[in-house]
Amino acid sequence: MDQRTIGILGGGQLGRMIVEAANRLNVKTVILDGPNSSAKQINAVGAHVDGSYNNADAIARVAQRCDVLTVEIEHVDVKTLETLQIKHPKLEIYPTPQTIRLIQDKFTQKEHLIKNGIAVSESIEISDASVKALEEVGRKFGYPYMLKAKRLAYDGRGNFVVDSKDRIGEALQLLGDRSLYAEKWAPFSMELAVMIVRTIDGQVHSYPVVETIHRENICHLCYAPARVPDSVKFKAKLLAEDAIKSFPGAGIFGVEMFYLQDGGLLINEIAPRPHNSGHYTIEGCVTSQFEAHVRAILGLPMPKGFSSFATSNTNVVMLNVLGDSSEKDKELKTCRRALETPGASVYLYGKESRPKRKLGHINIIASSMQAVERKLQYITGESDSASDISEDLPTGTKIPGTSLTPLVGVIMGSDSDLPVMSKACDILAQFGVPFEVTIVSAHRTPHRMSKYAVEASERGLKAIIAGAGGAAHLPGMVAAMTPVPVIGVPVKGSTLDGVDSLHSIVQMPRGVPVATVAINNSTNAALLAVRILGACEPRYQDLMQQFLLKQEQEVLEKAEKLETIGYAAYLDK
Amino acid sequence: MDQRTIGILGGGQLGRMIVEAANRLNVKTVILDGPNSSAKQINAVGAHVDGSYNNADAIARVAQRCDVLTVEIEHVDVKTLETLQIKHPKLEIYPTPQTIRLIQDKFTQKEHLIKNGIAVSESIEISDASVKALEEVGRKFGYPYMLKAKRLAYDGRGNFVVDSKDRIGEALQLLGDRSLYAEKWAPFSMELAVMIVRTIDGQVHSYPVVETIHRENICHLCYAPARVPDSVKFKAKLLAEDAIKSFPGAGIFGVEMFYLQDGGLLINEIAPRPHNSGHYTIEGCVTSQFEAHVRAILGLPMPKGFSSFATSNTNVVMLNVLGDSSEKDKELKTCRRALETPGASVYLYGKESRPKRKLGHINIIASSMQAVERKLQYITGESDSASDISEDLPTGTKIPGTSLTPLVGVIMGSDSDLPVMSKACDILAQFGVPFEVTIVSAHRTPHRMSKYAVEASERGLKAIIAGAGGAAHLPGMVAAMTPVPVIGVPVKGSTLDGVDSLHSIVQMPRGVPVATVAINNSTNAALLAVRILGACEPRYQDLMQQFLLKQEQEVLEKAEKLETIGYAAYLDK
Repeated sequence: MDQRTIGILGGGQLGRMIVEAANRLNVKTVILDGPNSSAKQINAVGAHVDGSYNNADAIARVAQRCDVLTVEIEHVDVKTLETLQIKHPKLEIYPTPQTIRLIQDKFTQKEHLIKNGIAVSESIEISDASVKALEEVGRKFGYPYMLKAKRLAYDGRGNFVVDSKDRIGEALQLLGDRSLYAEKWAPFSMELAVMIVRTIDGQVHSYPVVETIHRENICHLCYAPARVPDSVKFKAKLLAEDAIKSFPGAGIFGVEMFYLQDGGLLINEIAPRPHNSGHYTIEGCVTSQFEAHVRAILGLPMPKGFSSFATSNTNVVMLNVLGDSSEKDKELKTCRRALETPGASVYLYGKESRPKRKLGHINIIASSMQAVERKLQYITGESDSASDISEDLPTGTKIPGTSLTPLVGVIMGSDSDLPVMSKACDILAQFGVPFEVTIVSAHRTPHRMSKYAVEASERGLKAIIAGAGGAAHLPGMVAAMTPVPVIGVPVKGSTLDGVDSLHSIVQMPRGVPVATVAINNSTNAALLAVRILGACEPRYQDLMQQFLLKQEQEVLEKAEKLETIGYAAYLDK
Repeated sequence: MDQRTIGILGGGQLGRMIVEAANRLNVKTVILDGPNSSAKQINAVGAHVDGSYNNADAIARVAQRCDVLTVEIEHVDVKTLETLQIKHPKLEIYPTPQTIRLIQDKFTQKEHLIKNGIAVSESIEISDASVKALEEVGRKFGYPYMLKAKRLAYDGRGNFVVDSKDRIGEALQLLGDRSLYAEKWAPFSMELAVMIVRTIDGQVHSYPVVETIHRENICHLCYAPARVPDSVKFKAKLLAEDAIKSFPGAGIFGVEMFYLQDGGLLINEIAPRPHNSGHYTIEGCVTSQFEAHVRAILGLPMPKGFSSFATSNTNVVMLNVLGDSSEKDKELKTCRRALETPGASVYLYGKESRPKRKLGHINIIASSMQAVERKLQYITGESDSASDISEDLPTGTKIPGTSLTPLVGVIMGSDSDLPVMSKACDILAQFGVPFEVTIVSAHRTPHRMSKYAVEASERGLKAIIAGAGGAAHLPGMVAAMTPVPVIGVPVKGSTLDGVDSLHSIVQMPRGVPVATVAINNSTNAALLAVRILGACEPRYQDLMQQFLLKQEQEVLEKAEKLETIGYAAYLDK
């Protein structure tokens, strides 16, 4: 795709996945790290260099062998990069040394963000690391507050939560010999992250906003998209984009932020490289964070159109695979369970197992976050039910029991509606649609009805069929409490021929639609539900097309018979 | 994932993509091919062997360095494999030498399939390649018929279409020195292919049925899924599975077949390895054909549940990237256009460009096949419109013009319905849904109506909103001719208060549902369409949830005001 060679400082898993993306585009790479490091393993062509990303000579040797220099870690020898840039003006370095310098010292990073009007938590520099100075911070910020090393802090190392005056001694013992700053505690309800790619001409493109869950200060899970309202995602995206616009140079950036209990957002920190919170992009997006980085630093085209990094209908959870502390290679058991799980993909980095070391990750996708979570539970061993992980049914198969995630809910106000509503169930079964059926009365079980409606979308229901008679309130009330499409079946009562039910269901006020079908015609309600599923899943649309053809065929056969034997004989039969 | 090493005979692009899958699972590989071959480039750890997959010594050296031996091409020295299997009973060889032997001679393959009751086209062996013998074939099969070399025939090489007696001389000149057989012409309307993976315990799992389009005998495009009815896909899947059940051993198999003009299916040929028609699986399925092969031959778990190889809602087209005959590296221009295209992924194999050489492939995905085809046209340069390739709209954006693929069609029987139906358009615009709006009359433009209905699903419409008054036939008639969900809006006329329209729309017969909303309430029709889209795309569901919250908030504010200022003052205002 490009004749130029990329030099990468650092050959861990991030480097490895950059190399994988470069391999796919036939872009050459040269890696600086120890022999047989993770990234070097998957590139036999590059003239790799053995050494440290902090060794000036080693960096210079990589620079000689490449056209574009990048990093998989920000803790590189930035002075050497600055010297190289002057000596070799043709060598492109992304992220720029200037950006790396701004970011690798976290306090400088913070000052830079503040200068650019980006919301961050309040911080103060600790010029002398003494008990007195830290007590002064406590008086200013209150407890707990964060004590952080300015440099070389990641995965929790270099950070200390000072939760009371009593722990200041401990904090100093741990971090006292490093350059420090203190940060006011951010009362967050969730940690969010956004990957942003910046092109050489300064344009920024963002990936979906995700939610990260840490365990012992190491990223454990990443939910994509984050389980927050759309408006929060939108604000988070703008905040992250504004932050990255302030850094010169090209490449991918990881932006970590706090979603505060009061609804506000603060930037926590920024990484000028691929990031653990972006591993989900390999499955969740057509162009992964690694490929986006390769394209950005080479100036290759990006997909046109703003939202092109998102796949609109996928939920992903990434699970980090860490070396187990109790048993060597125990993590491979987790990976085996992932291989058994539809929608799960395993990535191992070729690293030797050590406790808490990041050895790989697992991406899990499904059509709803609930289904993803069931798969996650199976993979981590919290659940052993294989039926939990099979979300798909082969076309035309009968529904076995109720362990499958229902896609359609059939509800009715009373068991007296069942003779009418059972026809809907027959049709759903015939089309192989996983469904559930129960009684929910608007007037007699109003709280049960609210619960059913409110939980419907979370549970993965794609449509609700609600049947009711008389002053039929069930379909409209359920529709008022869920964003899921609701199909109403007017059930004919003993008086008024069902027109009462029909008008109660169909004449909804503006704002809350109910898809109403003919009186007693729950067959059509189910066929409509199949058409709705067909809007997502082509196989349901194909089945519906076949159904229409079959109906046509049946009438054509009758027509032929009528034409052949005549109307009198036909009636006689 | 597994301590064992896989030896691969052949290091071309298929080997390369097997190695990529193995790398992800941290499975070691050793490759036999020339130095710096495509597959070797992305594995710096394996003790690779330089040589040919037909050289007994070289094969033996690979065997010494691996635990499981596999191939990326079936034209290997099978005798050596048989000898190795006897000498090293612990060495596992998949596909088994027996299967390779059955498949590498196409006539033997055909006889094997016939013996196992699999439908193939009629063939006869040519024991002496003479004009007389070939004329005899012509008398038996008619013209055209296929003359094929039994071995080493692929990408059209080794095949000759004998379309008349006059061309027999030419055929003999080209193929006369090889072992031949003749095959009756299969009058096919389409070529289909299915990838099947067979596990060590003999279970078969199939990938979706795809459609391949050849150009000058080389695979040009692959459509996944194939554009044939579901029933044909189902038959094709069963035929392919039955065929692969007859071969011993494990691994991935490519099954190519003819879909005949009379609706029948015949197997064309089988490849005991990853196949060009399965490259789409890298994007189209969670587990690619390459990873499935690695898992199968190592006995690693497969995803549980039958349909787990399919992603249910993706359309993919694979475009092969061949070396250009006129201009060196011209193919890279095609790749650059692919990089600009959302949903397209580029794979280059690290091979030197030569005319017609397979240098890479491009996978293109989108939510409808029509959108995929527009992207394809952009990539190949047939279209230059960048608006064609942006299928996604960022949330909440206004719809710019009509160049975007509409997801919802708004139609009405008459322009007099527009004042009512325009409210639906306002809502769709507000939710950022790409839509189209036009007049389609059931009674005055019945043919236009049929065309609109029949083409709706192909054009990617996910819902149709149809408004009509009086003896309102439009919604029901459109619903009768499309599997897409149709939402009916009864428009109130000058008499009968709209009850005529309501009953005409809602009281559909069993079999053809119309989702009916309240009289004149096209607002609700559009909100229902957004809910239907939300069943596929979470962002529409999020927006609907926000809309409901906003409605609630508005009423709460009014309630507060009423409670604050009292009912009399409230009415006065």
